[in-house]
Amino acid sequence: MKIVLLGCGVVGQGVLDIMDEHPEYGKVAKVLVRNTAAHPDSRVTADPEEVFAEEDIELVVECMGGLEPAHTYVRRALEAGYDVVTSNKKMLAAYYAELQDLAEKNGCDLRYEACVGGGIPWIHELIRLQRIDEVTSFSGIINGTTNYILSQMTEQGSPFADALKQAQEAGYAEADPTDDIDGYDARYKVALSAAAGFGILPDTEKIPCWGIRHVSAGDIAYARENNHTLKLIGSGRLYDDHAELCVMPRMLKNTNLLASVSVNLNGLTAQSTTLGPSSYIGQGAGRYPTAHAVVQDIISIGEGERTAGHCYEMPLNNDLTEEVYYIRTSAAEAFRSAAEVIDGDVIITKKIRYSELLPLLESCGDPELFIASVEE
Amino acid sequence: MKIVLLGCGVVGQGVLDIMDEHPEYGKVAKVLVRNTAAHPDSRVTADPEEVFAEEDIELVVECMGGLEPAHTYVRRALEAGYDVVTSNKKMLAAYYAELQDLAEKNGCDLRYEACVGGGIPWIHELIRLQRIDEVTSFSGIINGTTNYILSQMTEQGSPFADALKQAQEAGYAEADPTDDIDGYDARYKVALSAAAGFGILPDTEKIPCWGIRHVSAGDIAYARENNHTLKLIGSGRLYDDHAELCVMPRMLKNTNLLASVSVNLNGLTAQSTTLGPSSYIGQGAGRYPTAHAVVQDIISIGEGERTAGHCYEMPLNNDLTEEVYYIRTSAAEAFRSAAEVIDGDVIITKKIRYSELLPLLESCGDPELFIASVEE
Repeated sequence: MKIVLLGCGVVGQGVLDIMDEHPEYGKVAKVLVRNTAAHPDSRVTADPEEVFAEEDIELVVECMGGLEPAHTYVRRALEAGYDVVTSNKKMLAAYYAELQDLAEKNGCDLRYEACVGGGIPWIHELIRLQRIDEVTSFSGIINGTTNYILSQMTEQGSPFADALKQAQEAGYAEADPTDDIDGYDARYKVALSAAAGFGILPDTEKIPCWGIRHVSAGDIAYARENNHTLKLIGSGRLYDDHAELCVMPRMLKNTNLLASVSVNLNGLTAQSTTLGPSSYIGQGAGRYPTAHAVVQDIISIGEGERTAGHCYEMPLNNDLTEEVYYIRTSAAEAFRSAAEVIDGDVIITKKIRYSELLPLLESCGDPELFIASVEE
Repeated sequence: MKIVLLGCGVVGQGVLDIMDEHPEYGKVAKVLVRNTAAHPDSRVTADPEEVFAEEDIELVVECMGGLEPAHTYVRRALEAGYDVVTSNKKMLAAYYAELQDLAEKNGCDLRYEACVGGGIPWIHELIRLQRIDEVTSFSGIINGTTNYILSQMTEQGSPFADALKQAQEAGYAEADPTDDIDGYDARYKVALSAAAGFGILPDTEKIPCWGIRHVSAGDIAYARENNHTLKLIGSGRLYDDHAELCVMPRMLKNTNLLASVSVNLNGLTAQSTTLGPSSYIGQGAGRYPTAHAVVQDIISIGEGERTAGHCYEMPLNNDLTEEVYYIRTSAAEAFRSAAEVIDGDVIITKKIRYSELLPLLESCGDPELFIASVEE
């Protein structure tokens, strides 16, 4: 199988390394990079035309990240009838419907194992479960950066700013950490999990999304004192006529399996009809785990394995299941109608639907509010 | 695909139910049962000759359990050139080499996903990892009965005898619980995990095997007081020229992911070259989870998916990695040379190899000794 690789950063270089060790699965013929001087490899070029001019391409692997030009190149690959493997969750979550249509029209495979949970075979297992089962819900820790930050705060007592800095120094967080700490990265992954697991195409931007930018040592302490552990959780639940998807910090009971998924690990649980709960835990990022997932997709295409089915539009209903919420805000009084307890700037709500809480969240006017659901 | 099913108990009936709902994967034409009166289904027969006389069989599913006649029937199926799927770990661990030879000689597939970890895609993932990686070690909770018993003792404070009785009443333990509580069931599964993950054929009976028959409330309390949780762990590690396999209770740190795998769940972790650690947690037993695994094997055969490679003989070396051991025995003095601490009938050993401890264990003469390794 003749392959061209777009992007040779952390993940792309890992893919190149693994593929060069496994020529039985295919041969990377060209590699598109920004700066050829940084890559002492005769296959690199900075000219996309040179890459697409390569003859007999069968598969395009996109590890560039970002929306453009990645989106344009993936379009171009599918239009040319090439199968595509991408590790670019941000781009795919934004353009899933368009790229799925193109892939189907041109008889191509479009795979994205590496987009969710890094090396964890999450997308693979969601698809494999559906050989027999319906996947009815999923939830998990799908952002390693925030998990690292929350773990440092919980285990070392670090303030948020220090934990973020440690995450940046350890290479777990970008210089601009917005996508991670505000939950957007987790939201891309929730959308793609819903595509793979539920066969639906949600409008990513409509998924409720609360991050950890405003988490404090006090929030961590509250969780600990109540035998809970704070995690950023992405989740989804499928009903007959709608789906509920959400990204929000959650205080998990310490006995919950996911409470023990620490440092930069990811952990995901699916519920399906005959199997019940099944959980998958491992490296959610990093060069070789993520590249491993990309190469698994390459091999699967070579072996003609089953891929995700066609996805359909499905309305989101953000009512969500009734929950108790922990809210810390300078505008605590605004939540009186929903509160079970108000203690200074902390509110513990009654068990309510998110849709009941949302007007209060929107009108309270506190940009530094922190919210987490609480496992009972 | 035309299928005959041998055995229609808990798992077999589940397979029949799922297959009848999914005719696209094959059709069960005959079902061998002990007592036809108990099964109001026109396909049942108590006569194995009638089953094997069925024309155009492609696949034999064996869910009888026990060594004989299951072993004889699986031999017969492979000799006739039929693919085989079995959920019978005891039989397969005893006859793996013979049945593998037969399968290869006759060009048949022999699959056993359901034998380890019930519904968890453990065997599948061990095989899939090896498309890219070498699996270097594995460990986990692979016996739901003992996990249920230890969870009840830990969470409810039940004595062993009561917890065993609860497990029997809940259907998690057999009337004769020997295979579970003495670790033999876990040992079958360790042997089959080594076959799937390492490509080796261990002599199952040479795997060190310590169960939980003699565990006491005091042992559980000791673990708890030291922020540990007691679990029965099966494990394996592959070296260039030997393998180390073991079944033994282990006091896991409470922060270890597997410490949170409770009740009757199973949880398994593999270490592999590019992926690092990957963990899989779910229902280790029960009708539909186990039947799900059997049907996944049936589908995989239908789709021509990759199966486990040929397994080779590999010597076991029971030196094992150096560990601290917790031993409770009426013969504590016999362990003085290995002890870091002796406190009444409890010994905490120095960090030593199992091979150094074994002569003391064999000579101490206490049939009710309890041993567990301790995670540091």
